[in-house]
Formats: sequence, C-alpha cells, structure tokens
Amino acid sequence: MSQSIIQNTIEDLESLRSKSPLVHNITNYVVMNNTANALLAIGASPIMAHAIEEVEEMVTICSATVINIGTLSESWIQSMEKAAAKAVSLGKPFILDPVGAGASNLRNVTIRRILGAGSPSIVRGNASEILSTLNSSGKTKGVDSTDSSDSAVDSGKSLSKVTGGVVVISGATDYILSGAEKAQVRNGDILMTKVTGLGCTASAICGAFAAIQPNQFRAATSAMAVMGIAGEMAKTKTSSPGSFQVAFLDALYEIGADTIKQKLNGE
Amino acid sequence: MSQSIIQNTIEDLESLRSKSPLVHNITNYVVMNNTANALLAIGASPIMAHAIEEVEEMVTICSATVINIGTLSESWIQSMEKAAAKAVSLGKPFILDPVGAGASNLRNVTIRRILGAGSPSIVRGNASEILSTLNSSGKTKGVDSTDSSDSAVDSGKSLSKVTGGVVVISGATDYILSGAEKAQVRNGDILMTKVTGLGCTASAICGAFAAIQPNQFRAATSAMAVMGIAGEMAKTKTSSPGSFQVAFLDALYEIGADTIKQKLNGE
Amino acid sequence: MSQSIIQNTIEDLESLRSKSPLVHNITNYVVMNNTANALLAIGASPIMAHAIEEVEEMVTICSATVINIGTLSESWIQSMEKAAAKAVSLGKPFILDPVGAGASNLRNVTIRRILGAGSPSIVRGNASEILSTLNSSGKTKGVDSTDSSDSAVDSGKSLSKVTGGVVVISGATDYILSGAEKAQVRNGDILMTKVTGLGCTASAICGAFAAIQPNQFRAATSAMAVMGIAGEMAKTKTSSPGSFQVAFLDALYEIGADTIKQKLNGE
Repeated sequence: MSQSIIQNTIEDLESLRSKSPLVHNITNYVVMNNTANALLAIGASPIMAHAIEEVEEMVTICSATVINIGTLSESWIQSMEKAAAKAVSLGKPFILDPVGAGASNLRNVTIRRILGAGSPSIVRGNASEILSTLNSSGKTKGVDSTDSSDSAVDSGKSLSKVTGGVVVISGATDYILSGAEKAQVRNGDILMTKVTGLGCTASAICGAFAAIQPNQFRAATSAMAVMGIAGEMAKTKTSSPGSFQVAFLDALYEIGADTIKQKLNGE
Repeated sequence: MSQSIIQNTIEDLESLRSKSPLVHNITNYVVMNNTANALLAIGASPIMAHAIEEVEEMVTICSATVINIGTLSESWIQSMEKAAAKAVSLGKPFILDPVGAGASNLRNVTIRRILGAGSPSIVRGNASEILSTLNSSGKTKGVDSTDSSDSAVDSGKSLSKVTGGVVVISGATDYILSGAEKAQVRNGDILMTKVTGLGCTASAICGAFAAIQPNQFRAATSAMAVMGIAGEMAKTKTSSPGSFQVAFLDALYEIGADTIKQKLNGE
Repeated sequence: MSQSIIQNTIEDLESLRSKSPLVHNITNYVVMNNTANALLAIGASPIMAHAIEEVEEMVTICSATVINIGTLSESWIQSMEKAAAKAVSLGKPFILDPVGAGASNLRNVTIRRILGAGSPSIVRGNASEILSTLNSSGKTKGVDSTDSSDSAVDSGKSLSKVTGGVVVISGATDYILSGAEKAQVRNGDILMTKVTGLGCTASAICGAFAAIQPNQFRAATSAMAVMGIAGEMAKTKTSSPGSFQVAFLDALYEIGADTIKQKLNGE
C-alpha cells in the first residue's frame, strides 16, 4: 500500500511535469501570487481569471479548475457557479476549497450555491471546513482548523457520498476519502500553519495532479504527498515562516523520485 | 519611561502569542499576502474578508478590525463603513490606515466617510497621510511621505482630539499620540521604505496588539516597537529589499524578550 | 551599437534612481505585490490604483501609467480606458501589457477597447500575445508564449505601425521595435519563466524608464536590458524559483554600471 502510494506519486509527478497542464484558478486575493508560483514550481501552467465573461472559455482550455472561496463578493460567486457548471458539463476535474466554511452565513450559502452548480471531483479543506461544508456541528475559527482531522473523517466520508467525489481533510495527518477508499499521508511540518495560504496551495496542487491523473482519488493522494514532503524539505532549510514560504516553493521545484521514496509516510 | 516601554512590549507580545487573536482585515490587494503572513508570524490569526454581506459577522468574531484604503472601489468603501460602525458599536478596536491620503479626492472623501461611520481607536500613517487626514496643508506624494514625522506631531495631536483615539505617525522616529500622551520609538531601518506595504503591516500589527491590550496607546506603542526592532533584525541579515521582506517576516516570528531589551530605543 | 545600449542603459538607470518617478499601475491581482516591490527596488515610486473615480488624478500626478489586463472585470476595463485616454491627452507615457491576449474573447475585446481609448507608447508581451494583439494567427496558451519571439518580429513591426509606438517582444531574445528601429537584448535566464509575473514586472520596469527617458524606444531597451541582467544576477544566487523571485528583487536594487558593462548582450 505504502509502496503503491510512493510509486503512484512518482509516476504522477513525472506525468505532470511532462504535460505541464493548464490549471484554471478562481481563487482569493491573498494567495494568488503564491498559488501561481506553486503551480509553476511543480510543473503546471496557471491561469488566474474570474470575469464571468471569460470563465467558461478558461475552463474549456484548461485541464482542471480550482475554485477557492477565500475572498468573496457576489460577482465572483456567480463566476464560480458558472465555472463549476461548465467543468462538470465537460467532464473536467473541478476542485473546491471551502475556505473559512462556517465563519459566515455568506460562506455557507456560497458553498451550497457552488455545490448546486456542479459536484466537485475533489473538495479539500481542514477538518472544521469539511465539517461545516457538510452542515455538521463543526465550528470554524476563521480559516484555522478547530477540529482535528481525525475526528472529521466520518464527516468527510459523508461529504464524499454527497458529492460523489473525493474529500481531502488536511491536518497533521491528511486523509483522502472517496466512497469506501481511504488513504493517509503523514508528512508535512507544523510550520506550514504559519504561512498563509498553504492550504490553498494544496488545493491548487490537487488541481494540477487532477489535470493529468484521471483517478481523482489517486491524484489527490499524490498531491498531498508532494505537499507534505515539500514542507519537510523546506523545514530542513529554515525554522522561520518568511524563509519557509520561499523554501517551500523551491522544494516543489526540486522534489523528485528519490526524495519521495525516502520521505513519503503514507498508506 | 524607556524601561516601561520595554516591559510593556515584552508583556504584550507574550500575551499576543498566548491568545492568538483573530484580526479582521479589509485591506488592499498589494499587501494582503504579506499582511496575513506578518500577522501569523507575530502570533495572531488573520482573516481577510471584504464582502458587505459578511463584514459584520467577521468584525463580531474577531478581536480587532483593520481598515486600509490602499486600493479602493465603491463596494469596498461601503464594506469599510459598515465594518467601522460595527466595531465601534461592539466596543472593539478598529484601526484605520489612510493609505495615500491626499493623493486623490476619492481618498479624502473615503476617509471622511469612514471617520463618519465610526471613530478608529488607532489611526496609523506617515506624516503626509496624517496631515491629509486632518485636512491640513500636507500634500502626499502618493503613498510616500513628503513631510517628516516630526513636523506632523501637532497635526497628529489635533487628529487625536478629533477621533478621541490614538494616532501613530510612522517615520525615522515613530510618534504615538493620544490626547496629552506621547511616546516615541526610534527603531527601524531606511530599507523598510524599499519594501512595499510595511506601513500597512505596521497597521495590521497595531491591530494584533490592540486585540489583546485594552490600552490602545500602549498597544500601538508595543506594535511600533516590535515593527522597528524586527526591521533592525532583518537588516542584520541583508541589505537588499527582496531578501529583506523575507527576513522581516522571519524576525517577527523570532523576536523575543532578549532582543526587545537589547534593541528598543523609545521613550 | 552595443556600446551605445550599454551607455544609454547606465545613464537611464542613474536618471531613474535620481528622479524616483511616480509610476501608476492598473495591474492584475497576481502580481501587484511583486510589481510594486520591483518598482521600489529599481528606484521608482509605485502607485497601484484602479477606482474609476481616481484614475485620472493618478495619471495626472504620475510620470507614467502601466495598464496590465491579467485579471479583468468590466469595472476595471472602464478604468483602464479612462486612464489610457487621460495619459494620451496629457502626452504622458502609457504602457500596455496584453496578458493572455488570445486566450478569451473578453481579452481581445478589452485590448481593442484600450487601444481605441489611447495609443500606448509601449506595448510589451510575449510572442503569442503580440501576435494576438495584432489579430494575427498566433494562438496563446494562456499567459505562456507558444510562438518564438523571433517569428513574431514581423507582427511586432506591424503592431508598431498601428500604435505609432514601441513594441517589445519578450523571449530568449527580447526585440524592441519602433517603426524602422530595432534593438535586441539577449540577457535573462530560462528560470524567469518559472516565476509568475516577471513579464508583468518587465512592463512595469518599462514604465519606470519611460517615465524619465522621453525616447520611448530607448526607455524600453534600457528596461529590457536591466530585466535580463537582473535575471542573470539572480541565477548566480539560486537555481530554484522561490528564492529566484527574491534574488531577482535584490538584483534590481543592486544592479549598477559595472554589472551592466560586464553582462549586457544587446545590439
């Protein structure tokens, strides 16, 4: 099992770098620069575009669409709905990051609207965001997680039944859930919580792998493995968050088969 | 006096790190990533949200709200007014950063609208922004200061009377003014003016300290002390602005009691 | 010829640093922070402002205006039109970066609207963007170039006739075209394509030089020389994109006459 995750991750990363897929992002203002740089570093080609007049064209020319609700306004929500519907109609991967789910009524309504427009092939969030996305009792403290990822696994499984797709719960252990399937990745470093938007980066990296690996469960697992290992690589360079953010991008660019074999801790 | 600033800053920083307060920011596109990272580095939990449908909820769940007018549009201004009014009605700290005050009529009108919606517990700007905020004769050269902070002290005092709160004038010497009270911090480095948005960061850090220290004069003084010392720490690592921006975030994370005792130059 | 490019670049850079011109940017969310930092690092004073109520004032107080269509929405397009018209009416330099030209109908329409509002003194893009801007057969793969800059030279010359201004085609070789004039810069590094928005930075740096050098052909040539050399300087520090982005900003700050003499490869 662990062996197959290692091999799959190595193969998917090679495929990603050789295909350099276009990944469309409708994401928040805070992380746009870092998300685009992370996608470039791992080998994808990012497009950031939100205008309602062009989102359908962008979904069409891209191999995956990532929708992140971090900074909302009504016109952006409408574009997110339109992009979600288009991706589903074309059978293309669509990743939802429900940032701050539960922190405001607007966010909960937005999640319902997007889920209504189209079912995401992957939803990625921290435990409280996944709980809130399911309208469960989880209360989110803003964009930080207040529930351990372990306790959210049941809710994640339920959400997977609702969407018919993959659900990723980020935390000290990342859980990747899809129907009866379940994978775990135990890589990463606590310093990753001191850099804004690395959760958003994880969702974008899920999009990059989803763009080249049709099995969305495997794609999400490879993405979370790469994220966690890159975090550990960055931690060997620094213990402070400013330089960690920089070293993390370097690690996404430098990560290769040897490092994956050596560090991947999953099943 | 200097001794008490040192002790207060150390205590406030410990309190900030133990409480990890949620700080709500309605800020400009240019600095959002850096502001969020600075808040995380110093120990706070940032929320960046501007939608008019959710700003009141965000003000309610957060311990302080920071409003920064760097990149404006009408819908954002309305959200700023609503957030300011809500913060004041709840008795929560509200920090105003009047970026580019005086550079356009829109900015002057916006400042009047926000001040009309609620009085900020702290206003932080450079000398020309503080002068312009008071409708004085200061002319701003965009977001850079054209007046020394010293010459603006009288205007700062007058603005403090208008708002009934604290006014911080950033410069080679930072002045913290509130009614008859006046503190000075003479830390920092000229290289800080070569990194975009460190003034915006200072306002956000004021928000972080204001969230945990009810005495807003003391909170602002601690914030400016930490900013200046972190700038000096970063300067020991590099003399160029790209790596300085990174080193500055590291310094906010690394700063502790010993460094504060050693470097703080205030009264 | 090469000798005169070297001398012109050195003189223009000295002039830029001594005058520290205000450069107004209406640019995309992804690159705003980096663009502002690049302008500060090279010695200019950035203003980022897009509100339709203030763009004319910003154009008026600034020495050059840079319009970048990377992330669009209707209200921003209207501000871009207004800013372009104002810059032309005042005889001030106006730089257009047609990001993603050809990737959507909205982008093509937007380019036509902006060109209709005022002719840019400099258009800078990669080969496919320049081709698309001319309604030629170039097909853009998002914001990446799919045509070599060499093949686009004829289209660039044609576009220069349409606008009556300078056209810069970025690539392994940068071409600067204006009527019958043609310059080439062969500096830079392939790693620059792995950092988001360095093309946008190039356009902003064109704006900084255009602000202080009335000959827009010379200004654009000096800008592209500085960009390429700074890329080579950064590459001596790192081979990974996260730290490259940081080192590039440092290089813009550190570049001087000696490095320009040593490294500039143009004619």
